Amino acid sequence: MNQTSDMYIPTFDDVTAAHERIKPYVHRTPILTSTYFNNLTGAQLFFKCENFQKAGVFKARGASNAVFGLDDEQAKKGVATHSSGNHGLSLSYAAGRRGIKATVVMPSTAPQAKKDAVRGYGGTIVECEPSTSSREAVFAEVVASTGADFIHPYNDHRVIAGQATCSKEMIEDLGNLDAVVAPIGGGGMISGTCLTLSNIAPQTKIYAAEPLNADDACRSFKAGHIIADDAPDTIADGLKVPLKELTWHFVSNYVTDILTATEDEIIDSMKLMWKRMKIVMEPSSAVPLAIILKNKDIFAGKRVGVIITGGNVDLDKLPWNKN
Amino acid sequence: MNQTSDMYIPTFDDVTAAHERIKPYVHRTPILTSTYFNNLTGAQLFFKCENFQKAGVFKARGASNAVFGLDDEQAKKGVATHSSGNHGLSLSYAAGRRGIKATVVMPSTAPQAKKDAVRGYGGTIVECEPSTSSREAVFAEVVASTGADFIHPYNDHRVIAGQATCSKEMIEDLGNLDAVVAPIGGGGMISGTCLTLSNIAPQTKIYAAEPLNADDACRSFKAGHIIADDAPDTIADGLKVPLKELTWHFVSNYVTDILTATEDEIIDSMKLMWKRMKIVMEPSSAVPLAIILKNKDIFAGKRVGVIITGGNVDLDKLPWNKN
Repeated sequence: MNQTSDMYIPTFDDVTAAHERIKPYVHRTPILTSTYFNNLTGAQLFFKCENFQKAGVFKARGASNAVFGLDDEQAKKGVATHSSGNHGLSLSYAAGRRGIKATVVMPSTAPQAKKDAVRGYGGTIVECEPSTSSREAVFAEVVASTGADFIHPYNDHRVIAGQATCSKEMIEDLGNLDAVVAPIGGGGMISGTCLTLSNIAPQTKIYAAEPLNADDACRSFKAGHIIADDAPDTIADGLKVPLKELTWHFVSNYVTDILTATEDEIIDSMKLMWKRMKIVMEPSSAVPLAIILKNKDIFAGKRVGVIITGGNVDLDKLPWNKN
Repeated sequence: MNQTSDMYIPTFDDVTAAHERIKPYVHRTPILTSTYFNNLTGAQLFFKCENFQKAGVFKARGASNAVFGLDDEQAKKGVATHSSGNHGLSLSYAAGRRGIKATVVMPSTAPQAKKDAVRGYGGTIVECEPSTSSREAVFAEVVASTGADFIHPYNDHRVIAGQATCSKEMIEDLGNLDAVVAPIGGGGMISGTCLTLSNIAPQTKIYAAEPLNADDACRSFKAGHIIADDAPDTIADGLKVPLKELTWHFVSNYVTDILTATEDEIIDSMKLMWKRMKIVMEPSSAVPLAIILKNKDIFAGKRVGVIITGGNVDLDKLPWNKN
């Protein structure tokens, strides 16, 4: 799907419509503060807890917006994706709420826990061989035979407008912020953040936080064009995917800077947040605090929104338990 | 300290005063709901998250009430306790906020993490030998030499009035509840719950949740007098202590029933809550859900408040990681 020439750039009207549309199906998540982390960073931090979101992740917003925006005829044919991670869960959740079918194509070799999670939210799994060619072939077959609507995890204007409702809630609840920090992988959350803030809080700086081991967005940002890594390896497994045309539009036009953190910095920040804030969140969600801690001069004295993107983590394989 | 004959039973006026007194120093903690757990139990559950409380535990309420209720002359002499657990942390926190000294007597053999935590909240540690006689002797010496006020972890009317503010907030925020479930160890939280509910929501049933491996409160309740175990052993380490005169007064007069859960049931409930609610909480805090899950007939169709008492847990030694 090539969207470079004719891609639709969502507007803030789309965000307002998305917010109304998804309200019955997603949480208005709480915003937590921590004296400990304020003292540690010198900033005033506001943690938007999307780990408490439906399906355990902010992606329930974008998926719900896409699913509930379908007309009845299209909805009958269902939706499909080939993301076996948080987007697959979120799409299964949203489709379940609408009472339509969500097909998730995933490799037969995917961990049982991931298959169970998708099925737990009501998704239907179609297995493929563990290769890109098999995945694409099987996915094309699913879409052709069912007419299901392909909902990309992030390179989709409906998804981005949905994710944009997260920072809309932050500004509504907190008023002015000097900066917002969110992790960046494919760029769906950051694009939504750009979309909202550039419209209703254009003075707020937007920092994207990326694992150094998967710093393709950072390098793209410096190069001025998309650079995609072949196979980045990071504990923050939600952040391995590359930017696409639509998210690049937002990143290249509205992001203030992209800052990176090492694996150890991410793990240390994650453990410290579990310990002090008493919340379960994914490694990806710890990257923002990691970059704030190593760039205190940027954030000290500022009111900073921090997006805790999700809480779906394998409790049997926590990164600080080496077993 | 024998309080049987002349002990002061706190009143709801004490709770109202406590609530005003501690307001600047403790969080009004959020109440979370979970569609997943509602479906699983058939009840409508409201989780009061004291794991997000100052010092990570509800005991910050009682400790703050005791510390800020001292007159200036007494306050100058400081406070003392021999609890190296959550009460020691909470007392250190509250004393620190008032700018007075908290002395915590603990065995020289106590884990370094516990010592660090008390010192992290500003407490002063005085070490004793790892025996009851040494602890009592050293503690008596501290009190005699400093004139510090001894604040018992639970058998103290100021502490109970402080803990009682937790269920006061629940009723204020939620209106009527059919039942409230809280863990029971020494009985401080349950006594506070009884104190509040018997005054402002007398129709609400009060269930205490106890580990089967430390079921002295349950056996006391059935026997009609306090039975103290010598050395109960449970993963819910905050619940090993026995009832005392003042907490027995509330438990024997106002508790509807005491229900128990096995170690496996506690660990399973704890892991499930971490997984689905994305919150970090102690094993003790999982006992209420464990007893709800095994007594569904009691709670189905009811509006039930569940007190998540604390979140101070060793992330390196989670009970489901056998390393």
